[in-house]
Amino acid sequence: MRARVSVRLKPAILDPQGKTVLHALQQLGYNEVNSVRIGKLIELELNSSDADSAKTQVEELSRKLLTNPLMETFDIELVDDEGD
Amino acid sequence: MRARVSVRLKPAILDPQGKTVLHALQQLGYNEVNSVRIGKLIELELNSSDADSAKTQVEELSRKLLTNPLMETFDIELVDDEGD
Repeated sequence: MRARVSVRLKPAILDPQGKTVLHALQQLGYNEVNSVRIGKLIELELNSSDADSAKTQVEELSRKLLTNPLMETFDIELVDDEGD
Repeated sequence: MRARVSVRLKPAILDPQGKTVLHALQQLGYNEVNSVRIGKLIELELNSSDADSAKTQVEELSRKLLTNPLMETFDIELVDDEGD
């Protein structure tokens, strides 16, 4: 079982890294881009085969350990694909 | 139009940040987790309303600017949802 945790900065939080990339893109002529936000993509592999308990566990560890709930939000996708 | 670029380290590339998180999780009792890889999630907003040209442009700037093709792979999802 794989879990994909997408971590994003909350909208109210400034993202200087994203701003820097945005300015670089605009200076290089990519003028259609008007916003860049940079988050994290955390991919976990779990031995668990039970989707419900895996999701509960990934939610818990994302909330407690992988993210900062003051500044970030996250969502979780489970992929039941051991062979991938 | 929004584009979501998921950037992952290639499988052959070591991920010390992921390894550190994995060890921390295991020490805290999350023994079902057996792999952690940490990538980037880059979200762009574009003025373009044409999905094909937006995708072409995002592919180009991802390849040239947002990622290191020697070490990373990426995939792109377009979301045609201005109101979100």
